[in-house]
Amino acid sequence: MTEFIPPGSRWHALTSPFPMKRGGELRDARIAYETWGTLSAQRDNAILIVTGLSPDAHAAANADNPAAGWWEAMLGPGKAIDTERWFVVCINSLGSCKGSTGPASVNAATGEPYRLSFPELSVEDGAAAAVEVVRTLGIAQLACVIGNSMGGMTALALLHANPGIARSHINISGSAQALPFSIAIRSLQREAIRLDPMWNGGDYSDAAYPESGMRMARKLGVITYRSALEWDGRFGRVRLESDRPDEDPFGLEFQVESYLEGHARRFVRHFDPNCYLYLSRSMDWFDLGEHAGGDVMAALTSIKLEKAMAIGATTDILFPLQQQEQIALGLRAGGADSQFVPLESPQGHDAFLVDFERFDPAVRGFLATL
Amino acid sequence: MTEFIPPGSRWHALTSPFPMKRGGELRDARIAYETWGTLSAQRDNAILIVTGLSPDAHAAANADNPAAGWWEAMLGPGKAIDTERWFVVCINSLGSCKGSTGPASVNAATGEPYRLSFPELSVEDGAAAAVEVVRTLGIAQLACVIGNSMGGMTALALLHANPGIARSHINISGSAQALPFSIAIRSLQREAIRLDPMWNGGDYSDAAYPESGMRMARKLGVITYRSALEWDGRFGRVRLESDRPDEDPFGLEFQVESYLEGHARRFVRHFDPNCYLYLSRSMDWFDLGEHAGGDVMAALTSIKLEKAMAIGATTDILFPLQQQEQIALGLRAGGADSQFVPLESPQGHDAFLVDFERFDPAVRGFLATL
Repeated sequence: MTEFIPPGSRWHALTSPFPMKRGGELRDARIAYETWGTLSAQRDNAILIVTGLSPDAHAAANADNPAAGWWEAMLGPGKAIDTERWFVVCINSLGSCKGSTGPASVNAATGEPYRLSFPELSVEDGAAAAVEVVRTLGIAQLACVIGNSMGGMTALALLHANPGIARSHINISGSAQALPFSIAIRSLQREAIRLDPMWNGGDYSDAAYPESGMRMARKLGVITYRSALEWDGRFGRVRLESDRPDEDPFGLEFQVESYLEGHARRFVRHFDPNCYLYLSRSMDWFDLGEHAGGDVMAALTSIKLEKAMAIGATTDILFPLQQQEQIALGLRAGGADSQFVPLESPQGHDAFLVDFERFDPAVRGFLATL
Repeated sequence: MTEFIPPGSRWHALTSPFPMKRGGELRDARIAYETWGTLSAQRDNAILIVTGLSPDAHAAANADNPAAGWWEAMLGPGKAIDTERWFVVCINSLGSCKGSTGPASVNAATGEPYRLSFPELSVEDGAAAAVEVVRTLGIAQLACVIGNSMGGMTALALLHANPGIARSHINISGSAQALPFSIAIRSLQREAIRLDPMWNGGDYSDAAYPESGMRMARKLGVITYRSALEWDGRFGRVRLESDRPDEDPFGLEFQVESYLEGHARRFVRHFDPNCYLYLSRSMDWFDLGEHAGGDVMAALTSIKLEKAMAIGATTDILFPLQQQEQIALGLRAGGADSQFVPLESPQGHDAFLVDFERFDPAVRGFLATL
C-alpha cells in the first residue's frame, strides 16, 4: 500500500469523527492541499480547485514545491488563473492516495491500512472535506469554485450543501449526475481490477500487486478520456518499427497500442488500486438530483450564484456536452449569469488537461469579469 | 474447444491447400453457409451476405433450420431482402467457430484443434473463401454483396480482388480501414482474454476456460456496440431491486451493469476465445488502401459497380459514420451510382441488428431499384 504525496503538501485535520454520507465515519483523517498567491485583507479573492479522480493537490509550481504541476499551463502569475490576483487553493480529494486520507492510508485505530474497511465514499464526502479546508483558511466566501471532471461533481455537491459559499463557479467537463454509459465504463474498469487475482480482495502489497487489472483499467480510461477524432490524426494506422517477425500475433503492433501501454505503465504503480475503486464508485453514485427529490434540474436551480460557466468538449464521450449544458441551464434558472461554453476540442474528456489554446481563453475570460 | 454449428448448415470444401495472405496455408478447410430462395435460370438474382465478427451463417429461418436467425427481421419472403425474388447466400466467416474452419477446428494433419497454430488470419482470406462458395454455387456475378460491420470490410476486400463479381453493394456500418480508436478497443478486448490465466496461451478447455477474460471482452464490446444516448433513455440511473445491504460496494448495483453482465454471460461460452482473438486482430490489420499503395480512396475508386450504398448510424463510435461516407464517396468516384445513407439511430454500431424501422426501408429501397 503506497501513498504518493507530493513534497510541500499542507494538511488540514478533518473534524473527528468525520461522518460519511453512506454511513460510517473517519477518525483523525486529513486533507492535503496546496495554495498559490496571497489571500487579500478582505479575504475575497480565493479560488478553490477540486480535481478529477487521479490528480494530487499540486496543480502548479509554488514556493513549497517548484516542480511543474498537472495544470501548470493554467495556474500561475499572469496565467488564466492568475496567482498575482487570486489566492488559489487546490485540494487532494478525500479517498485519494496522494496525501488525503483514503483506503491506502493507515487507520490510526488499527495501525493497518484501511483497504476495504474504508467506509463507502461519496462525492458529497469529498465536498464536505473541501469545505472544512476553506473554512480553516478563514474564507467565508470563495470568489470561485473550479471543478474539473469528478471535481465538477464535487463542486456542485459543495455549492448545493453550502449556500453562499461562493460567488461564482466554473464547471469543466463535469456532470450533475452519472449516466449509464459512464457507469458502464467505470464498472468495467473496476471489474478489471477486481478480477485480477493479485487484487486479492483489496489485500495486495507492492510485491504482490494487481498490475494487469490496473493496466486494463487505465487503458480503458485513456481510451474514453480521449477521442477517436484525435487519434485518427495522431496515430492513423502507423505501426511500431519492429516487423515483429515470428512474434506474438496478438502483441503490440500499432502505435496506438504502444501509446496505451505507455500510459498504463506510468499509472499502474502510481495510483492505489483500492483508492481507484472507491473514487470510481463514488462518481457512479453521484446524482445531485438526490438532494431535490430526484429532480436534477431542481437541485441545480436551488444553487444561488452570481456567475457561472460550464465548459465541455464536443468530443467528450465520458461526460458528454449535454451534461455541461444542463449545468449551465440549471444554474441560470437559479439566477446566475450562466454561460454554456462548448469547445470544439478533438481531445475528448481530457481536453482541459492539454488543449490550453481553447480552455485558457474561456477560463481567463470568465475570471476577468469577476 | 467447442464449435457452435447451427443445424442445417451446408459446407463448401475450400481449395486445399488454401493460401493465407499473411503466410501459411490451410488444408481440408471448409466454409459453412446457408441459402434462401431460388437461384434464377439466368443465375442473376444472387445476393451474398458477409457478417460481423460473431454471427453464424443462419441469418434467418429456412427449410433446413426453421429457428429464427440473427437477421430474421430483414431476410425472408416479402422482407427487405425478399427471398421470393433473391437467392441469398450467407457465409460463416473463415476463422469463426460456427461451422467454418477456424482456430477451434480440428487440424486434420494433427487430429488436434489448431488453437494458436492456426495461421494469421486476414479479412482478405475470409473474402477469398467466400468467393469460392459463390463460384461453387455457379454464380458468375452477384446482384449484390451485403456486408455488415466486419462483413463490410470483407465485402470491400472481395469486390476489390474480384472485378466484376457483383453489380451492386450495400455496406452497412463497415469500414475500408481500421482506425486507431477501434484498434485500441479491440486490442484491449484481446488483452483481457490473454491476461486471463485460464486462457493459457490458447490451450484452454471447457473445464478450464478463460471465462473472466471473455466476460470483460464482451462487456467492452457491448459498451462500444451501443451508444450513450440509447442507454440514457433505456437505463438512466435505475438501480437493481436489491438494496444490497452490507453487500460488496463494487458489486452490480445499476441496471446498466446487470445488462452488461447478462450480455456477457450469454456470449462467454458461445464463442471460442481463440477464434475471437483471430477475427478481432484481422479487423485491425484490414486496410483496403494496402492494395493501392496505401491510398484507401484510390483502392475504393478502383472497385467498379453499377450501384452502391453505404449506411451507418450517427451514434456508431466503433465504425464511425465518416467511414461509411468515405466508402460511398470512393465507390462513386469509381463510377457507381453510390449513396451515403446516415441514419439517426440511437443504437450505435449494432443498430443494423435492432433498428429495423430505419435499416429496413434503406435496404428495401436500394434492392427495389436493382
